[in-house]
Amino acid sequence: MRNKPWAKDYLAEHDDLMVTAPEALKGNWESRFPTNQPLYVEIGTGKGQFIVEMARQHPERNFIGIEIQMSVIAVALKKVVASELTNIQMVHTDGEAVNTLFSAGEVAGLYLNFSDPWPKSRHAKRRLTSPVFLAHYQDVLAPDGQLQFKTDNRGLFEYSLQSLNNFSMVFDGVWLDLHQATDGVEDIQTEYEQKFSAKGPIYQVIAHFPKQA
Amino acid sequence: MRNKPWAKDYLAEHDDLMVTAPEALKGNWESRFPTNQPLYVEIGTGKGQFIVEMARQHPERNFIGIEIQMSVIAVALKKVVASELTNIQMVHTDGEAVNTLFSAGEVAGLYLNFSDPWPKSRHAKRRLTSPVFLAHYQDVLAPDGQLQFKTDNRGLFEYSLQSLNNFSMVFDGVWLDLHQATDGVEDIQTEYEQKFSAKGPIYQVIAHFPKQA
Repeated sequence: MRNKPWAKDYLAEHDDLMVTAPEALKGNWESRFPTNQPLYVEIGTGKGQFIVEMARQHPERNFIGIEIQMSVIAVALKKVVASELTNIQMVHTDGEAVNTLFSAGEVAGLYLNFSDPWPKSRHAKRRLTSPVFLAHYQDVLAPDGQLQFKTDNRGLFEYSLQSLNNFSMVFDGVWLDLHQATDGVEDIQTEYEQKFSAKGPIYQVIAHFPKQA
Repeated sequence: MRNKPWAKDYLAEHDDLMVTAPEALKGNWESRFPTNQPLYVEIGTGKGQFIVEMARQHPERNFIGIEIQMSVIAVALKKVVASELTNIQMVHTDGEAVNTLFSAGEVAGLYLNFSDPWPKSRHAKRRLTSPVFLAHYQDVLAPDGQLQFKTDNRGLFEYSLQSLNNFSMVFDGVWLDLHQATDGVEDIQTEYEQKFSAKGPIYQVIAHFPKQA
């Protein structure tokens, strides 16, 4: 996406929805929402369609969208503003270390949608389903809290299935063509998904970490 | 496949390659081969192309093909006879309970190729990757022995990924379009695979059981 000159001011004008110092809220995210209810986090929230629609369909949950690109999160923020929903907060940072943003067990569920595939083997560590990231997710997820990961990238999904499995995560469901699924699984689509899914299948896995010994 | 009236006699004529009382060989399969070397088993060997080609490419291994349908195993047996290979034995039985055929650790590797998908939920227990079967495989596989499973059936593969994972099996590799793989993975094709793979992707997973505690 091209740079949006209005983005910086727009974010500053909406500091009720935009969190600028997220580390300060670690363990205290309920203070940003009118209702204390389970917290769901999307890492790499993009243009925001997924998280806004999730928040609309799940008023019984609070949502946080994390996005590193200012021009992108500004587009997402516009959707949040227009939605008038009060159960979404947006965070302009990277998803590198969610364990610096959330305390142990503070997150009820994590969403990764169409994360950067980093196709070269030497960049495997940058994939959001690599072991270092999984360890961070494990730090913050509540017991039985689920990681839901969706992508159209075959190589990334092959890698991710193996990575989650090798990390001892327990699969709750696997979909190899989500848009053909007949099991009634919820599928809130992202902008990217709507635009590109005609090219091939959408893959999804939902998994949780094993109980700590 | 239609019934082949010649099958029964043909099998009887080749009792050097056909095992009729496999339970009697439990723990003693090396007696059926000229060389004592690691034993690989295909459950549901069909028309035999896979196991014959594997045996040709891996003279350092012994192979057993198990197939329940007499008319089908007769076709496979013809290929074995024509190959003149001595590192294949064929077994006319079902794959229901491999632990009655092999002793603990006797099998170095197991192949499942294009197993019956049993698409109805109430038949899930009949799928060769359901927990009861996995327990049998675990009984007979040597430590680090691999299960290699290949199918073109999306529903069966989704089920199998979850089933293997939930059984605590460790994934060594996952392929969501095997014929497009660029990692040099070995792919000996079955008759069915050659005939039908144009219709969609071939899925494969290779996994092993965790070390026994």
